[in-house]
Amino acid sequence: TQLPRLGPTGPGEKPRVVVLGTGWAGCRFLKGLDMKMYDAVCISPRNHMVFTPLLASTCVGTLEFRSVAEPVSRIQSALAGAPNSYFYLASCLGINTDKHEVYCETVSSDGLPSDPYRFKVAYDKLVIAAGAEPLTFNIKGVTEHAIFLREVYHAQEIRRKLLLNLMLSENPGLSEEEKKRLLHCVVIGGGPTGVEFSGELSDFIMRDVRQRYSHVKDYIKVTLIEANEILSSFDVGLRQYATNHLTKSGVRLVRGVVKEVLPEKILLSDGSHVPYGLLVWSTGVGPSQFVKSLDLPKSPGGRIGVDEWLRVPSAEDVFALGDCAGFLEQTGRQVLPALAQVAEREGKYLAELFRRIEKQNGGKAHCAKDIPLGDPFVYRHLGSMASVGRYKALVDLRQSKDAKGLSLAGFVSWLIWRSAYLTRVVSWRNRFYVAVNWATTLVFGRDNSRIG
Amino acid sequence: TQLPRLGPTGPGEKPRVVVLGTGWAGCRFLKGLDMKMYDAVCISPRNHMVFTPLLASTCVGTLEFRSVAEPVSRIQSALAGAPNSYFYLASCLGINTDKHEVYCETVSSDGLPSDPYRFKVAYDKLVIAAGAEPLTFNIKGVTEHAIFLREVYHAQEIRRKLLLNLMLSENPGLSEEEKKRLLHCVVIGGGPTGVEFSGELSDFIMRDVRQRYSHVKDYIKVTLIEANEILSSFDVGLRQYATNHLTKSGVRLVRGVVKEVLPEKILLSDGSHVPYGLLVWSTGVGPSQFVKSLDLPKSPGGRIGVDEWLRVPSAEDVFALGDCAGFLEQTGRQVLPALAQVAEREGKYLAELFRRIEKQNGGKAHCAKDIPLGDPFVYRHLGSMASVGRYKALVDLRQSKDAKGLSLAGFVSWLIWRSAYLTRVVSWRNRFYVAVNWATTLVFGRDNSRIG
Repeated sequence: TQLPRLGPTGPGEKPRVVVLGTGWAGCRFLKGLDMKMYDAVCISPRNHMVFTPLLASTCVGTLEFRSVAEPVSRIQSALAGAPNSYFYLASCLGINTDKHEVYCETVSSDGLPSDPYRFKVAYDKLVIAAGAEPLTFNIKGVTEHAIFLREVYHAQEIRRKLLLNLMLSENPGLSEEEKKRLLHCVVIGGGPTGVEFSGELSDFIMRDVRQRYSHVKDYIKVTLIEANEILSSFDVGLRQYATNHLTKSGVRLVRGVVKEVLPEKILLSDGSHVPYGLLVWSTGVGPSQFVKSLDLPKSPGGRIGVDEWLRVPSAEDVFALGDCAGFLEQTGRQVLPALAQVAEREGKYLAELFRRIEKQNGGKAHCAKDIPLGDPFVYRHLGSMASVGRYKALVDLRQSKDAKGLSLAGFVSWLIWRSAYLTRVVSWRNRFYVAVNWATTLVFGRDNSRIG
Repeated sequence: TQLPRLGPTGPGEKPRVVVLGTGWAGCRFLKGLDMKMYDAVCISPRNHMVFTPLLASTCVGTLEFRSVAEPVSRIQSALAGAPNSYFYLASCLGINTDKHEVYCETVSSDGLPSDPYRFKVAYDKLVIAAGAEPLTFNIKGVTEHAIFLREVYHAQEIRRKLLLNLMLSENPGLSEEEKKRLLHCVVIGGGPTGVEFSGELSDFIMRDVRQRYSHVKDYIKVTLIEANEILSSFDVGLRQYATNHLTKSGVRLVRGVVKEVLPEKILLSDGSHVPYGLLVWSTGVGPSQFVKSLDLPKSPGGRIGVDEWLRVPSAEDVFALGDCAGFLEQTGRQVLPALAQVAEREGKYLAELFRRIEKQNGGKAHCAKDIPLGDPFVYRHLGSMASVGRYKALVDLRQSKDAKGLSLAGFVSWLIWRSAYLTRVVSWRNRFYVAVNWATTLVFGRDNSRIG
């Protein structure tokens, strides 16, 4: 049977850009896209962007989940209001680059005419910004027992489990050993996410648990396990600062490699066992199932291969950016790290490139072949920031690992970190909301109701 | 095998009150209980109180879920901090009134030594405040397809489904009829909950949907179905005002009786069908499974029978209050309505009664038999309030249905309604938070991210 379809644009209509994904790259692109020149159809299983740097602090109630989620229809209001622009809550199953069509399936078929509900969307230009997935390194038990930390629902699961474990540990009849295991929070991965989460958790324990779960406050512990060095991309002095601060906050730093994950303990490669009640997995990311399934040339590391203009060379009118894309080997460029900063810069660049393309009437399908594209994309690292818990952060303003430059730590950095993020949050509503969340936590303490 | 147990209090220890439930009654009692005289063990599957009058406005994002939930350990901080007072996240399975013990099961056995995890708690005094359940009148299909509106997770489910239906209706290939059904929101029950929710939903449609889901704004409709009169306990003039206001807001008011609920439509007793995409069931409440299972004399209507001092006469040291309790026929008193106001007054009264009891050394088990209890409980209705949507509310200050008295409608009432609730919310944190939520919504509009 014929699939329902959003057909190709007509001669009098604006060219349609189909964007797959609502992460940093996709949203920054949509924000900058000139909606007088283009219509946009955004397709994603998630209707909002996640402000990932602040995600860790939602796990313990410092911030509310809603403060770190920005609906894509607020980022690009044309998706909500313009007659020919849409947001579809769906996943992309595949792409037909010759026919210029994407095949999609809605996230839920509840109440729809068929189950599953699939449809096709024709594009003039396609922008793939489908992101990446956490790497499990094929270690047994990770997907079943660990919680990742990339989505709001992960943070919610973490918060729920943490509060549940705290309350369950109060029940009569539990041995010391059982309480300690239940309240042992283990974090795998010493990058910014793992460090930020450990720091927040440690704050939470020192301030809130002491007060609100005083019967069990002596049992709860945090351990951070990292295979190499924590915050390996940061300046060595900052790394030392972070290590000291975390240790002083009560976080146990362990260098180790996870071999297997069981329901109540982890096995390390040195043979030791680590019992846990809550396990958070925040190692690196890699190509998603969707990206692996695409029949397109890949970069080193398996991402969708792109040239210096973020085009997929073998598929006309197709572009890719963010965590899912990487420079092809023949460009001579290194694949960029999977960072929010990189994705954002690429999104901004691509929106400007699209303006240049349509200015020369290249927006419609098959019309951009001979159009001069101007400057390729160049990434300049503006510096790295990470929080190590309340009131302390690191700001590393060196352009690369070996460069000299400014690196700060401490309370001032924390202020900078907070302000930088406040200005990056994409709507005034959320900027206000985040500021209020922080103020509320400062004055009243974190929220502890076990809901959502 | 022996169950884990929190054993009876010793001669030198304070008497222990076990409280079942964290609703209006249980929490108001705990708030007023003199913790210098008593230790308290609160047992409930829910660690927070739900501020039910504001629950309806969380469904559409006017308020955040967290604003209407108050952790019981903030209401009574001794549960968090005092050495012999506890909160157990568990359900009560049964009571042995002779042995003065309750039998409990934790809400989750994840990580605990046995599955399920059960334990016993000995009490000097027992306060049953276990609430009530929504009435389905044994109508087929209600539990499977409708969503109730009494808990935060209900409101979350409603918000999720509403946003999901809005987004799904945007997909290509749906007929007009399918879109209309998907976006038809039906509310069953014309009491304050149903009216408030219909009002909020109607606001949401007129303001937010118009802007953020403009492609489908003409398809979304709200219908409120009530068997008798909406807001039947209110003054007839106010009822008329509510009816007019709802109708002007676009809510379709239907008098009808639901006969059966199918996955995509409701059958009414007059033979007509009502297709729906979202179905909210907010009729009255009745005795829960737990209350039905208790081998204690019942009031008319099946609630736990109590005397004028809220004691369960046949079980020494046992009290009951709130939605789960009702005056025994022999008292000559009417069973009070299942209202938050009633539960709150009873909770306050009982806390004072407990102070009187222990002042005369009657706190420990078996010690209160001959103690004069003083004045019985008397309920004075302070008036009813209901919101009919943004900026409009009803305030009915008559003491009973036939009395004369003040009744107001309109914007001023809305201000009173809002202030009254602001002062009733039990912590400064949440008062602040609720005020900020309202201000944020006022300035920036409702939140639309489909999370939680």
